[in-house]
Amino acid sequence: MENLKSKLSWSDFKLNSDGMVPVIVQDYKTDQVLMLAYMNEEAYETTLKLGKMTYWSRSRNELWTKGLTSGHVQYVKSLTIDCDNDTILAKVEQVGAACHTGNRTCFFTPLL
Amino acid sequence: MENLKSKLSWSDFKLNSDGMVPVIVQDYKTDQVLMLAYMNEEAYETTLKLGKMTYWSRSRNELWTKGLTSGHVQYVKSLTIDCDNDTILAKVEQVGAACHTGNRTCFFTPLL
Repeated sequence: MENLKSKLSWSDFKLNSDGMVPVIVQDYKTDQVLMLAYMNEEAYETTLKLGKMTYWSRSRNELWTKGLTSGHVQYVKSLTIDCDNDTILAKVEQVGAACHTGNRTCFFTPLL
Repeated sequence: MENLKSKLSWSDFKLNSDGMVPVIVQDYKTDQVLMLAYMNEEAYETTLKLGKMTYWSRSRNELWTKGLTSGHVQYVKSLTIDCDNDTILAKVEQVGAACHTGNRTCFFTPLL
């Protein structure tokens, strides 16, 4: 249990149409962008409590502490909010692969 | 005019509740994450045509080629789609500041 303290509370954030905040997840050592996920208030509070990135799974409609089943945990290194309080940037220590495909990052398909 | 060719078309993307795709914008030299913005189809096509990052401004409800008025243009270096085709990662050459506050990045407020 980490019980991280947040300088802002959930009510300070500007939510998207689905009542969530998008979270950009970046490897704290390499600065590689790993994925984008979404948090609701419960996910944010659980992330702070555990020190492990926890999201709201929009596909399964449930709280999702990344790595609980796969072991591919993301330990929180830093959390930063953007200038209009509607997006979080998380730097994490990624165990194994961030992507369910087994790739380190979800971004592996070039468009150009 | 760049007229970049995209390997996937807009219809291949999975849109969010607002009919848009979130775009993570990263400095191609430093890997610093600069901002999160949103594209609709017109913004995506304009980005390809100009080679300059173009978004849909949700506050002004209009097409927004970043830097047209400020000079803080973002030249496209690479575009990558994620594993479920719902988020774009753009690496850009950022002229000046990405943030309207004058900060290089919109992420300058630590939460922890």
